[in-house]
Amino acid sequence: MRTTVGIIGAGPAGLLLARLLYRAGVDCVVLESRDRAYVEQRQRAGILEQGTVDVLRECGAAERLDREGLPHQGIELRFEGRGHRIDFPAATGGKAVTVYAQTEIVKDLVRLQLADPGGPPLLFGAEALAIEKPDSAAPVIRFRREGREETLSCDFVAGCDGFHGIARRAIPADRVRTFERTYPYSWLGVLADVPPSCEELIYARHQRGFALHSMRSPQVSRLYLQVPNDTDPADWSDEQIWDELSARFALDGGDAAWRLERGPITATSVTPMRSFVQEPMRHGRLFLAGDAAHIVPPTGAKGLNLAVSDVVTLARALAQHHTTGSTELLDGYSATCLARVWQAERFSYFMTDTLHRRPEQSPFEDRLQIAQLDRIATSRTASAELAENYVGLPLS
Amino acid sequence: MRTTVGIIGAGPAGLLLARLLYRAGVDCVVLESRDRAYVEQRQRAGILEQGTVDVLRECGAAERLDREGLPHQGIELRFEGRGHRIDFPAATGGKAVTVYAQTEIVKDLVRLQLADPGGPPLLFGAEALAIEKPDSAAPVIRFRREGREETLSCDFVAGCDGFHGIARRAIPADRVRTFERTYPYSWLGVLADVPPSCEELIYARHQRGFALHSMRSPQVSRLYLQVPNDTDPADWSDEQIWDELSARFALDGGDAAWRLERGPITATSVTPMRSFVQEPMRHGRLFLAGDAAHIVPPTGAKGLNLAVSDVVTLARALAQHHTTGSTELLDGYSATCLARVWQAERFSYFMTDTLHRRPEQSPFEDRLQIAQLDRIATSRTASAELAENYVGLPLS
Repeated sequence: MRTTVGIIGAGPAGLLLARLLYRAGVDCVVLESRDRAYVEQRQRAGILEQGTVDVLRECGAAERLDREGLPHQGIELRFEGRGHRIDFPAATGGKAVTVYAQTEIVKDLVRLQLADPGGPPLLFGAEALAIEKPDSAAPVIRFRREGREETLSCDFVAGCDGFHGIARRAIPADRVRTFERTYPYSWLGVLADVPPSCEELIYARHQRGFALHSMRSPQVSRLYLQVPNDTDPADWSDEQIWDELSARFALDGGDAAWRLERGPITATSVTPMRSFVQEPMRHGRLFLAGDAAHIVPPTGAKGLNLAVSDVVTLARALAQHHTTGSTELLDGYSATCLARVWQAERFSYFMTDTLHRRPEQSPFEDRLQIAQLDRIATSRTASAELAENYVGLPLS
Repeated sequence: MRTTVGIIGAGPAGLLLARLLYRAGVDCVVLESRDRAYVEQRQRAGILEQGTVDVLRECGAAERLDREGLPHQGIELRFEGRGHRIDFPAATGGKAVTVYAQTEIVKDLVRLQLADPGGPPLLFGAEALAIEKPDSAAPVIRFRREGREETLSCDFVAGCDGFHGIARRAIPADRVRTFERTYPYSWLGVLADVPPSCEELIYARHQRGFALHSMRSPQVSRLYLQVPNDTDPADWSDEQIWDELSARFALDGGDAAWRLERGPITATSVTPMRSFVQEPMRHGRLFLAGDAAHIVPPTGAKGLNLAVSDVVTLARALAQHHTTGSTELLDGYSATCLARVWQAERFSYFMTDTLHRRPEQSPFEDRLQIAQLDRIATSRTASAELAENYVGLPLS
């Protein structure tokens, strides 16, 4: 098999890239090791920056998003028993975010790609094994499908296969630098069949640890608790989870001021937190995008949005090469992406570090966190700085 | 001896408090353990917030400051071989800072106080030994002067005697909470007889460590280098100091872009960095102000300015009590001050942590620092957030 751009991975990065390339008239093939059902139910992020929504709209993939997505004009910061709302449009000249689960975007993009008989091939159960000669003019992806090895010859390879994929590791170790931070806590996430107790997300900083109230739909709540690393979800009964969430979200004035509604918990999971960047994001004709090149802790809601900005930049560069033969944008790909990546890394670290309590955190650091949140709650400038980063910095 | 307010310490906090009380018609006496010459030559901070200048003007202590102080409309952040100016008035609606050394303020206030025959007594060489019954209606300061013990009976005691003074420790340990952070680096400071190589301060973040270019006057430069703790200034030759400063301030383009002028170094010193807060700032009729209650690392230029806002708050409260008998402002003194103190602690920590390199700092953290500085350099909002804090938050 041969194509112009071989895309490894059918997550949102790979699928959106295929869509953008297809519309730009650039051939591509998507290889995905898992089956369709698996890909369509991976629970991941759900906060879309304005720019992400715009991109999905422009490529015709936002029909259901526009119908079912929940526009959010702000978030609440909750600390010291008080709540403070950040008004995004007021702080950013009209920008906002949309709550729409990543799994839904994947479903929408898969359906679009498979519905179009002239669209690029999307091969499920096609496990990429190796990228050969990524720094040559004719890289080849070796992959296995239905027990047989095959090859995909390409002009370019897009590594959209995530942190654990093969693309990142296909770059020789002496050509990359990696940057990493792990965190001494994880998130215990729950899905619950209960209408959210709030209209917008609540980020709570509590002496017992961080908590986040999010939602999947008007009927389904998504809630998170900071827990120690290596926590076994089975160690938490549903009642314990609700009690702990209630304690961390409590406002001065108690239940009269605000009450967390409880309901059946349908899923629990524990997610570790990691910051990671691999530089550069290109090696010869192999281009990394999304989690294959960088990871952020989920606190800033930046992971999916970064993947989208990467593939927008990559699609533009591949389209330029396709129409003009110029490699200018391709040559700038890594630097262009990394500038935005590091801003998202910085913001994600800031949100994480300001809202979580480390096990060995000092009383001085507690006070600094509260002073930082107080500053955001009382200063238009500090509030705008959070809002601008949250709704997303402009694509360069 | 007896007075209404016994003030321990003739640094800027104690002297300004005496001046403010005098003008409000409240009797006071200032006790200072050192002699006048010592007090007038202690090298300390030199960046005055707009609000600090305003206070000194209002109490008639700014005649020489207005003549000799250097108004600064901005600072430069220097990193990765590039310089970026923060324009204070543009970012803050017209505010700026003034460079005028703390020692000069002390000289001005001492002269004013001694020149006025009806002014409050200022006793040099009067070493406070103990504060007796600070939580009673009649506290007494025991002090030693010319080898003899004396007492000063007061209605109120103001502890303006710094971090190592007796006032802070006169509060029973079970009535206070302390918050503290030490830093794994110090500042090697030099005074040099050479015109500054810049018109405004330069804060440099370099892979070799932090450097600061400040000035005392148009003829005298004040420069600082981040060095390991326990550095002996004698280990650094003048040439080594200039070489290291030149390396950390270097811009892309080398000497053609900017050059650090060298001259005779007249003084060197090593200053450790500490963050410290003691809560509350009041115990009965003893009130702590300035360094007696809190310390900030010098990076944010906040120490002197915090002392000024403390004593403004205290003078207002004591004057209210004097005229009306109300203890309302006195009762709110600690909370009022601490809200501002913690904002200054936060900002000082932020500036310190963003610009210095810890010995064990990771490459990820290096990149975060550069991303933070890049953000400030490219965002009006982030730049304004720095500027608002630097020129000083409003006195509440």
